[in-house]
Amino acid sequence: MTDDLTSCTLRVRVRYAESDPMGYLHHSKYFEYFEMGRTELLRRAGFAYRDLEAAGVLFAVAKVQCRFRAPAHYDDELDLTTKIERMTRARIDHSYVLRRGEMTLCEASTTLACIDRAGKLIPIPDEIYEKAHGES
Amino acid sequence: MTDDLTSCTLRVRVRYAESDPMGYLHHSKYFEYFEMGRTELLRRAGFAYRDLEAAGVLFAVAKVQCRFRAPAHYDDELDLTTKIERMTRARIDHSYVLRRGEMTLCEASTTLACIDRAGKLIPIPDEIYEKAHGES
Amino acid sequence: MTDDLTSCTLRVRVRYAESDPMGYLHHSKYFEYFEMGRTELLRRAGFAYRDLEAAGVLFAVAKVQCRFRAPAHYDDELDLTTKIERMTRARIDHSYVLRRGEMTLCEASTTLACIDRAGKLIPIPDEIYEKAHGES
Amino acid sequence: MTDDLTSCTLRVRVRYAESDPMGYLHHSKYFEYFEMGRTELLRRAGFAYRDLEAAGVLFAVAKVQCRFRAPAHYDDELDLTTKIERMTRARIDHSYVLRRGEMTLCEASTTLACIDRAGKLIPIPDEIYEKAHGES
Repeated sequence: MTDDLTSCTLRVRVRYAESDPMGYLHHSKYFEYFEMGRTELLRRAGFAYRDLEAAGVLFAVAKVQCRFRAPAHYDDELDLTTKIERMTRARIDHSYVLRRGEMTLCEASTTLACIDRAGKLIPIPDEIYEKAHGES
Repeated sequence: MTDDLTSCTLRVRVRYAESDPMGYLHHSKYFEYFEMGRTELLRRAGFAYRDLEAAGVLFAVAKVQCRFRAPAHYDDELDLTTKIERMTRARIDHSYVLRRGEMTLCEASTTLACIDRAGKLIPIPDEIYEKAHGES
Repeated sequence: MTDDLTSCTLRVRVRYAESDPMGYLHHSKYFEYFEMGRTELLRRAGFAYRDLEAAGVLFAVAKVQCRFRAPAHYDDELDLTTKIERMTRARIDHSYVLRRGEMTLCEASTTLACIDRAGKLIPIPDEIYEKAHGES
Repeated sequence: MTDDLTSCTLRVRVRYAESDPMGYLHHSKYFEYFEMGRTELLRRAGFAYRDLEAAGVLFAVAKVQCRFRAPAHYDDELDLTTKIERMTRARIDHSYVLRRGEMTLCEASTTLACIDRAGKLIPIPDEIYEKAHGES
């Protein structure tokens, strides 16, 4: 696998609107961050998810797991590391680590399935599969 | 105008995830509520916005104004009254009042434009226009 | 365990603002629904999470798992069944099933930890623990 | 007024989760962006809203107006210019222009009131007022 397609780190600042009455980044918002991580990872490998979607290639989230170790707060600057752990013709597994400085706040993983506009499973496009497996 | 198409009241309970570190319903969330009000108003007049959209008739928000008088909090039960103030062939003006019991929390108004999937302005469909003007 | 505290079903209608460019309820939003399920479950057992929080008893999400089987769409009416699977002095495990009619869209589980305002782990209050274990 | 406190431009990339079934950045999300703009503007003037809030100085949104001229889409890079138009002892008026390249997508204005934790109106702290009026 090339480095570009398999890992990237993104800095995100927690918005006020994302923070809940405890003063914590609401747990549902982490999944927006993970999605931003996947978009950037794909971009660094030369793909825009926007173009894939326009071409009828969609990635739907099939499974998520997340372990929250310590809270993030409004205005925190966080570093999200997104990795591709495994890619088959049918699915992509990502892992995520969210940190504030040296402190790990959260670890997560997701499984995406590739579908067409009608929601039917389709194979991951060759150019993405091959790039991820270092064949191009 | 028929009563059904021109006014409806919807009860909404404030979610934890919608509440901010002040403990207030975040001001951006009011616009989600107003949209829910418009969906219900349309439904009571016999239309589903989902079907309109599937048929290529979209309503885009062109303008909003909102005055926040008192905060809403997590778990509050609120009553949102949505009214059509004016409908021309090209635009719909709605007004909104959000209350907790007798207390008015917020007053707002929006202007929607009718567009097709390409974003081009189109006339509001006859059956909606006529229903709103008591012609059917 | 009493029925009231251990299971409840809540109807939710998918908002337009919660739906993504695929036309699907965005996967991050399911966690807002689960939280609404927990709030209602607690209410039926005679507790308001709002009052607990005001008294310095907070529940933080420590872990989530979710399996998405089929998408929900804008304006769908969904039924969310929330259950307490296990409660110790330190943690509560919930499970969730989200359905549209007979169809299961999603299954999930979460683990919550009880904390004080400083974020320190505290025991779950006696009255909740006892109610959940049928001792009151 | 010093330049720093009165105007700043922030780049924001539209998230997938912020985009609706039309493929547009949902209109409610603009208000999250405006809030980010205010946070940055304050930071450049040497203040952290987080610290103000911790000290019991809160800014509540009292009024918003927004005119949407053209839609933003998923993955667009937008430039948000936030300005302080007027600051009295009691209120701050901001204006906002959101652009994609040369194209203006949206113009807006808000009025904030300064309140304490109990929601009571309080004067804007001297150090902010004076900085905004070039007295320090």
